[in-house]
Amino acid sequence: MKKIDGWLTAPQGFLAAGVKAGIKVSGNHDVAVVYSTVPAACGAVFTQNKMCAAPVHVSREVNQHAYAQAIVVNSGCANACTGEQGLADARKMQAHSAELLGIKPEEVFVCSTGVIGQFLPMDKLLTGIADAVDAMDENEGESCAMAIQTTDTFIKKAAYEIELGGKKVTVAGIAKGAGMIHPNMATMLTFITTDAAIAPDVLKRAVKKAADKSFNMVVVDGDTSTNDSMIVLANGLAENEIILSEEHPDYAAFFEALLACATDLAKLIARDGEGATKFLEVNVSGAASWEDAKTCAMAIAKSPLVKTAFFGEDPNWGRIVCAAGYSGAAMTAEKVNLEIGGIRLVENGMNCNVPAEILAPIMSAHDIVMHIDLAAGDEQATVWTCDFSYEYVKINGEYHT
Amino acid sequence: MKKIDGWLTAPQGFLAAGVKAGIKVSGNHDVAVVYSTVPAACGAVFTQNKMCAAPVHVSREVNQHAYAQAIVVNSGCANACTGEQGLADARKMQAHSAELLGIKPEEVFVCSTGVIGQFLPMDKLLTGIADAVDAMDENEGESCAMAIQTTDTFIKKAAYEIELGGKKVTVAGIAKGAGMIHPNMATMLTFITTDAAIAPDVLKRAVKKAADKSFNMVVVDGDTSTNDSMIVLANGLAENEIILSEEHPDYAAFFEALLACATDLAKLIARDGEGATKFLEVNVSGAASWEDAKTCAMAIAKSPLVKTAFFGEDPNWGRIVCAAGYSGAAMTAEKVNLEIGGIRLVENGMNCNVPAEILAPIMSAHDIVMHIDLAAGDEQATVWTCDFSYEYVKINGEYHT
Repeated sequence: MKKIDGWLTAPQGFLAAGVKAGIKVSGNHDVAVVYSTVPAACGAVFTQNKMCAAPVHVSREVNQHAYAQAIVVNSGCANACTGEQGLADARKMQAHSAELLGIKPEEVFVCSTGVIGQFLPMDKLLTGIADAVDAMDENEGESCAMAIQTTDTFIKKAAYEIELGGKKVTVAGIAKGAGMIHPNMATMLTFITTDAAIAPDVLKRAVKKAADKSFNMVVVDGDTSTNDSMIVLANGLAENEIILSEEHPDYAAFFEALLACATDLAKLIARDGEGATKFLEVNVSGAASWEDAKTCAMAIAKSPLVKTAFFGEDPNWGRIVCAAGYSGAAMTAEKVNLEIGGIRLVENGMNCNVPAEILAPIMSAHDIVMHIDLAAGDEQATVWTCDFSYEYVKINGEYHT
Repeated sequence: MKKIDGWLTAPQGFLAAGVKAGIKVSGNHDVAVVYSTVPAACGAVFTQNKMCAAPVHVSREVNQHAYAQAIVVNSGCANACTGEQGLADARKMQAHSAELLGIKPEEVFVCSTGVIGQFLPMDKLLTGIADAVDAMDENEGESCAMAIQTTDTFIKKAAYEIELGGKKVTVAGIAKGAGMIHPNMATMLTFITTDAAIAPDVLKRAVKKAADKSFNMVVVDGDTSTNDSMIVLANGLAENEIILSEEHPDYAAFFEALLACATDLAKLIARDGEGATKFLEVNVSGAASWEDAKTCAMAIAKSPLVKTAFFGEDPNWGRIVCAAGYSGAAMTAEKVNLEIGGIRLVENGMNCNVPAEILAPIMSAHDIVMHIDLAAGDEQATVWTCDFSYEYVKINGEYHT
């Protein structure tokens, strides 16, 4: 597996573009189209939020099918909490795109991200889609990535090359999101394209599994948006022997590349967390189950007390073991060990009294890894997050709707 | 039921005192004793945190008995994450107090609050307990309340008088806590005394129920401490006919006073939340179950995005309905209604477009009530919380261990 520098158009047969349709107040790129020249197996996962946005309803229907050919996205308006009209608008967005692309509506995923509770500006949107379809080619991957951003401070992309039975296969992805939900702007969006040949049902299961181990292991503020979507299109143009089941000899290599791509993008989202000054990796081992390990890592990663301590560069291990203790995960309290940056701070549930001068350089680093052993089993999980700064309060408290 | 101004010594037969033992760096009061002149039925609830402190283990054993006579507390050191020695120290604290008071060790609850991971300074503590036992009388309720505080900005007390079968009965309580857990100092502590005559098993169930509807409905930062304890002593000196079951005609009046006392104290804790500039009440109605209503209210109350929005006085209803949506509570998304300060912002899941000038005075108030109707049933629940300010980040990020 080789990491490469590429956009969504790196795999064969994918075209893309992003254009400025005037939906974002800033005037930046705000409508994107991703298109496969041939039908692609599709797999997608969406937010579990019960107040989910209209485009999520429509894209869930698309994902019921085996194949799709396009993803159409706008930023600047989430089309969430918009009732019947919102749903009609999302369907119009889908139908209009399909007509322009010469495919069926049910082959077009639609996504929106931006302000909640406002209707889509349909004239601007439909014109934007037409412009994006006109503009799309193999060299417009960057404008496509720009058009899905809202308050992100940098573009998030990842791409890998693998060889399956002598054929070169490429997996490429982009993502947006700088908080699970923004100041009144929603959403984590991820799109991954690949020219791998894989059966739709196998792809759908692989996407679910990859999301669980990547995006579902990232937390910025614990808020899950109304619009979160991850969509993968696999068009088969690499001409590898089609992967018909998880038992196929090429499945493992494909899944590894898909997961690597998704994990890279997930970590970039945590790194770009609103107001973040630190990138934190929370490893939990010795758990009774993977669920326990994840629950414990999430409790630590979500704790405002832990996050503010890292912001303050304070090795406050009491807050970390306290969060582990209330997480609900099984643990042997008198055998718990905790390390930060490889230095053991807690052994058998007790303070190791490490001198402050040893911890200072570890706590002042930008990237910090912590590791807690629950001494209750053999399972482990890793969660990625960021710290909690004045800037987070500023971004989310001073931003007015 | 009459609200009165009184300390823990307001019910008959209770003595108390707080003294300065030199455990707190600040030199403030740090050791307290509460004593009933006769054995009292006892009921208590403790933190569910698996990393719970040594005194919690010891007090849980006390609560296995029907009667107890004293509560001995120190602030400045939590005696948490202290292993075998911590447990031995907590038992010594209990035995020493029992000896001085002329009662059995298993009649003495012990509590600690303060820094995690340090051993109790036993010489100072044991001297302090002796001083407090010497000082205790009916007029030292205030020094007792002072001695349980850590970073609280004000003393939290509540007291009620009721009449049961012609006898005057008093219920009085104090609490500490300004976050579920402090900057490296743990804990919510609540002590309630009453001269009501009530059977121990009935009291234990009543305490559990009252805690679930009061302290368990308060959230500051979502962190549950290693030391949280609520202890109630009922000594029967009011000579009301003993309440032997929940069916006794006086049970309802007693429970009402107990719950009122506990609810007052719980709200005071939210009001004194670290860095709080607002006191927020989250009402959820139309829920399919009480559990759903509580889950939804807690998700809203814990959301950093909701809390920072209130700090910024921004009526950001999108974040509130989003938190309700991901809480897991059943809801009919297209029928959800939301009101803030009595003004409807969301109707049938959609924006009401209320002008900003109508909302500004509501959002600038110190106390704000919000109400969300999930349109999925008839159950309701209320949670109290505070906002999330720069000061919270400052207190928790700049405080160094």
